[in-house]
Amino acid sequence: MTLPTILTLTSLRDLYASGAVTPVDVAEAVADRMEASADPAVFIAPVPRGDLVAAARALMERHPEPNSLPLWGVPFAVKDNIDVAGLPTTAACPAFAYRPDADAHVVVRLRAAGALVTGKTNLDQFATGLNGTRSPYGAPRSVFSSAHISGGSSSGSAVAVAAGLAAFALGTDTAGSGRVPAAFNNLVGIKPTPGLLSGSGLVPACRSLDCISVFASCVADGLAIRRVAEGVDPADAFSRSIPPVALSNAPRFGVLTGAEREFFGDAETERLYDAAVARLEALGATPVPFDYAPLREIAALLYGGPWVAERLAAVEAFFATHAEDFDPSVRAIIASAKDFSAVDAFRARYRFEALKRRAEAIFASVDLLLLPSAPTIYTVAEMRDDPIALNSRLGLYTNFANLLGLAAIAVPAGFRPDGLPAGVTLIGPGGSDDALGPFADALHRGAACGAGLDRAARFPPVPTAEPDRIHLAVVGAHLSGLPLNGQLLDLGAELVAPARTAADYRLYALPGTRPAKPGLVRDPGYDGPGLAVEIWALAPAAFARFVAAIPAPLGIGRIALDDGREVSGFLCESHAVSGAEEITGYGGWRAYCAAGTVA
Amino acid sequence: MTLPTILTLTSLRDLYASGAVTPVDVAEAVADRMEASADPAVFIAPVPRGDLVAAARALMERHPEPNSLPLWGVPFAVKDNIDVAGLPTTAACPAFAYRPDADAHVVVRLRAAGALVTGKTNLDQFATGLNGTRSPYGAPRSVFSSAHISGGSSSGSAVAVAAGLAAFALGTDTAGSGRVPAAFNNLVGIKPTPGLLSGSGLVPACRSLDCISVFASCVADGLAIRRVAEGVDPADAFSRSIPPVALSNAPRFGVLTGAEREFFGDAETERLYDAAVARLEALGATPVPFDYAPLREIAALLYGGPWVAERLAAVEAFFATHAEDFDPSVRAIIASAKDFSAVDAFRARYRFEALKRRAEAIFASVDLLLLPSAPTIYTVAEMRDDPIALNSRLGLYTNFANLLGLAAIAVPAGFRPDGLPAGVTLIGPGGSDDALGPFADALHRGAACGAGLDRAARFPPVPTAEPDRIHLAVVGAHLSGLPLNGQLLDLGAELVAPARTAADYRLYALPGTRPAKPGLVRDPGYDGPGLAVEIWALAPAAFARFVAAIPAPLGIGRIALDDGREVSGFLCESHAVSGAEEITGYGGWRAYCAAGTVA
Repeated sequence: MTLPTILTLTSLRDLYASGAVTPVDVAEAVADRMEASADPAVFIAPVPRGDLVAAARALMERHPEPNSLPLWGVPFAVKDNIDVAGLPTTAACPAFAYRPDADAHVVVRLRAAGALVTGKTNLDQFATGLNGTRSPYGAPRSVFSSAHISGGSSSGSAVAVAAGLAAFALGTDTAGSGRVPAAFNNLVGIKPTPGLLSGSGLVPACRSLDCISVFASCVADGLAIRRVAEGVDPADAFSRSIPPVALSNAPRFGVLTGAEREFFGDAETERLYDAAVARLEALGATPVPFDYAPLREIAALLYGGPWVAERLAAVEAFFATHAEDFDPSVRAIIASAKDFSAVDAFRARYRFEALKRRAEAIFASVDLLLLPSAPTIYTVAEMRDDPIALNSRLGLYTNFANLLGLAAIAVPAGFRPDGLPAGVTLIGPGGSDDALGPFADALHRGAACGAGLDRAARFPPVPTAEPDRIHLAVVGAHLSGLPLNGQLLDLGAELVAPARTAADYRLYALPGTRPAKPGLVRDPGYDGPGLAVEIWALAPAAFARFVAAIPAPLGIGRIALDDGREVSGFLCESHAVSGAEEITGYGGWRAYCAAGTVA
Repeated sequence: MTLPTILTLTSLRDLYASGAVTPVDVAEAVADRMEASADPAVFIAPVPRGDLVAAARALMERHPEPNSLPLWGVPFAVKDNIDVAGLPTTAACPAFAYRPDADAHVVVRLRAAGALVTGKTNLDQFATGLNGTRSPYGAPRSVFSSAHISGGSSSGSAVAVAAGLAAFALGTDTAGSGRVPAAFNNLVGIKPTPGLLSGSGLVPACRSLDCISVFASCVADGLAIRRVAEGVDPADAFSRSIPPVALSNAPRFGVLTGAEREFFGDAETERLYDAAVARLEALGATPVPFDYAPLREIAALLYGGPWVAERLAAVEAFFATHAEDFDPSVRAIIASAKDFSAVDAFRARYRFEALKRRAEAIFASVDLLLLPSAPTIYTVAEMRDDPIALNSRLGLYTNFANLLGLAAIAVPAGFRPDGLPAGVTLIGPGGSDDALGPFADALHRGAACGAGLDRAARFPPVPTAEPDRIHLAVVGAHLSGLPLNGQLLDLGAELVAPARTAADYRLYALPGTRPAKPGLVRDPGYDGPGLAVEIWALAPAAFARFVAAIPAPLGIGRIALDDGREVSGFLCESHAVSGAEEITGYGGWRAYCAAGTVA
């Protein structure tokens, strides 16, 4: 059996569908890879080969039909601050370890979809860090350099996927832990809108901000896995129903400029960032320089302010008796929480609210942000020499996202000449989790850097999103550039494409209309030229306002197009066309107007 | 000049329109009343007669046309924790007093609309209290009993309106201070959704929760004043744009039952509450017993938890040097903030989020709540004997609202046999500020208790809200009880009324449709019977989905009704009716179906 280096959902599905490979085979192969893994620090608790194979066999007994579940036989790794029944949860602190009775909510969902847990992965202790060196279980390394950090706190999860030890992995992201390790391992990191994935069964870092995240080899996989994992959980008070938010097809995106553009001397990562900006612009998006300062201040507030008290709140009793069991950096950070009073907490909230207003102003001028996932990468040795300051640098462009309730997708941006990878992150408003997908996918694809260890890996595109917009065929004065087109623009409508009606429509110039308007009437059996129309897309509420304001004798019905589609479009009451001039021969209202007949 | 006891906007507008009375006359009359006032504790800083008259004269010079501004010549009082330029702000703590250079944001808006400030009113110091006795400037009394408390913290503002010393007054409401004093003075208290009115120029109590509120004699006035005062203010980070939320015309409303029904032995206030429940039910609303426990726990969290740190945060430097200048109860409350750490603050947030989930479950089963504004009233002597415990009782049914971001309107509920008033409060989701109005107005009107001191005062109704719903005339299978009516119900549509088209429409039975459907076609000049239709109301997004799903040959256009109105409604493409049976003579699709012609 030849399993590809990088395990995508598509590659597994194809292998399973062919009948040549079973989940038991994949379990054996993954166990082989885990045993052969060059990095001993990836897993804190790998699932033993026998248990992994038994789980695959049990799946095949319960669901014998290949691919009969969305994640049938898909192996995944779980960051060791997320509960998996039967395995210890350590949060990378051995003295803290406990054996949960139940899976975390998201693990329940993923296993129910057929996915197979391969093990619990290493992390910066209590998810406190962005570098991957703060663990007594060792420091996982970037799959591209044994000298360099993997990024954290979800260090082992990222390396597991990048090394082909799992098809995907769960991480967590409070300040960037689901994005920085993606960048350092040539992976996609899905950072959902806070509340979209339940945190039940997660050891909190900052409970009000923690997001369970997904590492995958491509955006399509990451989104598919996130959709399986997401859903409202009554047991988690921070779990919420989050309405999807659409993005323009030609969005404005914020880019770093001037003094706020900081790569700490890493010109190659900066070059890769600029290349990503150029790629996104080439897709039809518009780069907009913006002032990063308010977001940087929010980031600083999270790391330097009273939110650190959430980290103490999560482990207070244990910390009181086991301070010596903590990593020194983590201990120092958590201990600093004691310096903050409730008054400090509310003061920081006030400061945050003021900065949030400035952040909202940014998102009034752009649809999304394109930022470096991390400004640079460090060696493990550099990190150990200056663990607090260098860690803060890693989070410069990630820290603010969860405080603002934003969605983010980190994607590979290519490689520096020294062979180390860099990443960029698209950040959009809460609920834009799916809407970011096509842009993130195109950015990744354009970087031509494969996924994880396999710089030539291929992966499927993101299925085209079906946005919550209604298509409307306009026939007359609402066409682009004609007198009533502004009504559509005012409602935020976007031109989708020109189109033509089926052959059995006739067009009439309605007498006495101001501005002049045509009437479209279907005449089944008539074989005319078809009439030029334009398809416009409107949000439902805008469509409703538009329809409700259309004066008689016009109305909105369904119009058949010459390609067989049927869309909402303008129709005309028949009484209004009796005696009206038929203008079907012009092929459309614009041509009729151009012929000079309309005053 | 005869000024009514209670000053409504309508009464002032009518007097001004008649030309018999000017703002200077009203200013003089109000100054007379303030001088004659029986309660010396209402104002901390009344505007001197000369200044008040000068302001009225200046208004008349700048805007000579009567009623040329929305609040032209309307006198109002301002709680003395809200800045008015030229008057000291004391927050009822003389040592804290300062002279602001500028009006608070809401005062700017109200003065720009022509309203005249009559003075700064007494309050529980730093708005810390719900009773009105915590002030060195004396304890205002209920206008109905010199022995009884006025309620607080907006004590002077409520009494000023109830005694006819102002047409309206600004209060503030953090835990109920805009509702409890309304109850004890037979007034309406408008408690806006948090963030709707700017807090710029307000001495904070709990800055994340404070709402500036409006006391008025009737709901119509209160809403009109709130609309003038509201609006996004970039200078206040808690100011927000709040989309209006509609309520059903026949809402389900939560009522207190069982162990959670607590009036502390005040059977008469309980009786008045029950009478209000019956009145709301008689309006077509449905009472739904619900478990108040989660809301009570949220209320307790606000008073017993770390939110008190916001009170210390607001005055920390002053408190450090002037603790002896504080009212003893207020001092004890603010000092208790020092016991709370940042960890406590986050823990309380977690507890709150869990309770919030339970509160959301309540609002999934009801549209709004009807609660007592206060469970009972106390004498000043009783309150001074037990200032903390009795104060907590007063807030039992108000405390939770701002933490949950809700809107509320307190209205009079009538009088106990001993002549003391009681109130009830309608509480709805954030943004329902206007939608609550008609129900609140009907409750007040049904109590037949006038306003303030004048138990026979009359006041205008709330103008019918124009809800953001679109009216649609349905003609055929979507009529009530017919096969496609469920599509409307599924979309949350509500039947508005049966109606009839204008005389120039014809109806046809469309051949081959399943379920059977008619087609409505206009034929100008035809004088038929008109056709029975039903008008349904849909939210815009629902309307959009409905229209986009209508199959050809039907569509939505504008239909003329026999009363001259024009509404959106079903039309039919003309080709579909050629050869179809005309059924206009039946007068409508339902009659045609009833005749047994449809299979």
